[in-house]
Amino acid sequence: MPDIFIPDATPELTGRALFPHRHLLSIADLKPWEIRFLLDEAEHWAQANKGQARKHDGRLAGMTQINAFFENSTRTLLSFEIAGKRLGADVVNMAAATSSVKKGETLIDTAMTLNAMAADVIVIRHASSGAVRLIADKVDCPVLNAGDGWHQHPTQALLDALTIRRRKGSFAGLVVAICGDVLHSRVARSNMLCLAALGAQVRAVAPPTLLPPEVEMLGATPFTRMDEGLDGADVVMMLRLQNERMDGAFIPSPREYHALYGLTPERLALAKPDALVMHPGPMNRGVEISSSVADHPERSAITEQVAMGVAVRMACLDVLTRSARGVEGWA
Amino acid sequence: MPDIFIPDATPELTGRALFPHRHLLSIADLKPWEIRFLLDEAEHWAQANKGQARKHDGRLAGMTQINAFFENSTRTLLSFEIAGKRLGADVVNMAAATSSVKKGETLIDTAMTLNAMAADVIVIRHASSGAVRLIADKVDCPVLNAGDGWHQHPTQALLDALTIRRRKGSFAGLVVAICGDVLHSRVARSNMLCLAALGAQVRAVAPPTLLPPEVEMLGATPFTRMDEGLDGADVVMMLRLQNERMDGAFIPSPREYHALYGLTPERLALAKPDALVMHPGPMNRGVEISSSVADHPERSAITEQVAMGVAVRMACLDVLTRSARGVEGWA
Amino acid sequence: MPDIFIPDATPELTGRALFPHRHLLSIADLKPWEIRFLLDEAEHWAQANKGQARKHDGRLAGMTQINAFFENSTRTLLSFEIAGKRLGADVVNMAAATSSVKKGETLIDTAMTLNAMAADVIVIRHASSGAVRLIADKVDCPVLNAGDGWHQHPTQALLDALTIRRRKGSFAGLVVAICGDVLHSRVARSNMLCLAALGAQVRAVAPPTLLPPEVEMLGATPFTRMDEGLDGADVVMMLRLQNERMDGAFIPSPREYHALYGLTPERLALAKPDALVMHPGPMNRGVEISSSVADHPERSAITEQVAMGVAVRMACLDVLTRSARGVEGWA
Repeated sequence: MPDIFIPDATPELTGRALFPHRHLLSIADLKPWEIRFLLDEAEHWAQANKGQARKHDGRLAGMTQINAFFENSTRTLLSFEIAGKRLGADVVNMAAATSSVKKGETLIDTAMTLNAMAADVIVIRHASSGAVRLIADKVDCPVLNAGDGWHQHPTQALLDALTIRRRKGSFAGLVVAICGDVLHSRVARSNMLCLAALGAQVRAVAPPTLLPPEVEMLGATPFTRMDEGLDGADVVMMLRLQNERMDGAFIPSPREYHALYGLTPERLALAKPDALVMHPGPMNRGVEISSSVADHPERSAITEQVAMGVAVRMACLDVLTRSARGVEGWA
Repeated sequence: MPDIFIPDATPELTGRALFPHRHLLSIADLKPWEIRFLLDEAEHWAQANKGQARKHDGRLAGMTQINAFFENSTRTLLSFEIAGKRLGADVVNMAAATSSVKKGETLIDTAMTLNAMAADVIVIRHASSGAVRLIADKVDCPVLNAGDGWHQHPTQALLDALTIRRRKGSFAGLVVAICGDVLHSRVARSNMLCLAALGAQVRAVAPPTLLPPEVEMLGATPFTRMDEGLDGADVVMMLRLQNERMDGAFIPSPREYHALYGLTPERLALAKPDALVMHPGPMNRGVEISSSVADHPERSAITEQVAMGVAVRMACLDVLTRSARGVEGWA
Repeated sequence: MPDIFIPDATPELTGRALFPHRHLLSIADLKPWEIRFLLDEAEHWAQANKGQARKHDGRLAGMTQINAFFENSTRTLLSFEIAGKRLGADVVNMAAATSSVKKGETLIDTAMTLNAMAADVIVIRHASSGAVRLIADKVDCPVLNAGDGWHQHPTQALLDALTIRRRKGSFAGLVVAICGDVLHSRVARSNMLCLAALGAQVRAVAPPTLLPPEVEMLGATPFTRMDEGLDGADVVMMLRLQNERMDGAFIPSPREYHALYGLTPERLALAKPDALVMHPGPMNRGVEISSSVADHPERSAITEQVAMGVAVRMACLDVLTRSARGVEGWA
């Protein structure tokens, strides 16, 4: 099966047989062709969303999507909310800040409550690794992981893969350098698994204090010097330096971090001449990335990543609810 | 009129003649057959919501539902929001935390503002008893009380009654023990009125410091010892111990409260062998209720209560807007 | 072109030729007939919203409206949210309190993110003057200014003008006194421009410390004494005294402010006998306005202003998206 988009997948290649999962919890659960299937579906929505005033599609009409964000994330919540509404679902947000969790309710009890309200799909973000799977085990409907602790953020990995595929065509042999605070990053963990599964050569580039020991197990080669990590890269994916690390024990200072690990034009010149620049956002300009790199008209794919985020989430919401909607082949 | 669900109510029994209220402010405003009418309507929605992917019903399409929660309540807000959206209404939430109330606006002015925006139904939660009726007097559309101070929480009482009716069939002679912090509980006040009106024998079981003097006026018999209150009960309804009472003057400590008034398996054994266990949530496990009781597969109806919450709110939103929608018999 | 409402505007008077703007950022951008065109459109919605249960109109169905409020405003947000939902748009709110802005993202990056999610119209409120125009320059869709700093609040001016037109018929020669904290008020700035453009004689009435030097440039005559400013006025528009000014350097105390600049019945008697009383809300009763004036059954237009707010926002959302929707004449 080629990496490029197949507009007319033959019926035998679709349906539950190809995507046998009830939830989307971790990239680690997905086989390479399952990832490619989701990317193909997302490509359909990427094209449908582009340049059209009427982006609505009613296939989730009558279904209830609950976004339960126990950790704030404006971008990811907006992206899932827009995706669900474009598909016609009744979307409701449960904000952590005002939730029963604050009243001492257990996570399982909150899950049981959402389930009892007859949700048809639940999107969860949580500060603790594994919390989303715990909830998924207790409910009757599909659960999408919108980020759990340092663990996984599967839709981010899918949107990054889709962005790369659109720009580079194929993953085979592509050198992708994931640079920055790899240790605390679910984005990095999901991306290493996803891109390695798709055939890319993945590098994890980080200061020694921010490079976790499991990098190789996740399919990536570790680098502690930016110069070596960027050498000959096709894609440079910068990670956000979390504010809470900036004055901590992990890095000396934001300024020094920028000097050693920030993506400057000089440093980008070490990668291939047509290397793609990516960042999951929100960016700390002048810390992990220079403005001239972030805003590069041909090289930067940062706003395309945001657009692909909505497309990927529409695809995941659609695919995971097909069984409940009785779509042929998805019983 | 029997207590059981009548699937084909004759036309003469329906319409404005049976339910002559513009607002739903307090169970005290309702006659027994009016309560039964709302339960029958809710039973319809309970069945419609169950196990179907498409739960949408467009009867409130084009109407504007404003949820004005001056007091945070994730569960109740979610329940009303889902109910309104399933009926097709345009639902908007007004969060207290960011409201004009903080800018010194009076409650009446806020009410007049919501009214001027041409709301078709307003759902209000407020920390002060009576605040909801004050607003209802000033607006042109139906108002639903989603909890006001220690006073009333009528949809909670209706969902509890519906849960009991589904499990026990009838209210006549049923012994219901409402246990815990009765003093500060609008849930208890609404339930005492509702269940007494439906023919149950209601008991209010609480420590002397948490048992208000008006219990008997509300139709319940007061008990200060759990053992006596639970003896022979068909339904044991535990109340939430509010966090703000836990280290106050009302109880010595959460641990001691659990020892004296918590629902343990041993204590539940004093009730009838098939006694139902209920809790309005969110639960303080190990304080007012033991986990083994809360999770009992046959006895606990706690998640069914949540499901009935959505059904009851759909019924109330539907019934109260029939007049404005020009439904036959509801002019 | 007369000031009164034209129910059947001839086709030649409509379309992009009449309203050539992509955004609504400031009243200063609009010619008088463009303002009148928006008022005529809003009058249509004012009549459609009134006394009908079904207020829905599907013309924005499938479009995504993002309300990005970097500054809290319950009323204005509710009004824009209701307006968008009544037109059938998929409306999503981005709350500043939980936004990426807090994570150090620049305003331009936030704008690029909203744009990449393929928003069809963005409504922005921001505490800094000029911030909304900065965003409008970077995105592909129409932007509506819902208030930026002390600068502009164009939909407020339009709703005030519509309210006045409905009550007074015409603006020619009408004496409008805008009274209170003019210095910090975008409402005052927008209203001075709008009403002067429409032909009214506008007065800015404020204590010397709260009267900005640019008043005359905005088309108004300055007054520092209420008695003189109110003399013979047809419309008295009171401004809100912001809480943060009350104990500051600007006024001695709320009580003294009321004595010198509050709108009391005695002071209102200086205006014309049928003078209209207006306030953008939320009101500080007993500070800038007396309750007996605010609640005057014939003279006060304060709740009508709120109703006109929804109508004006529906008109602006409709008009600004016509080009994208391919409405004839709006290519």
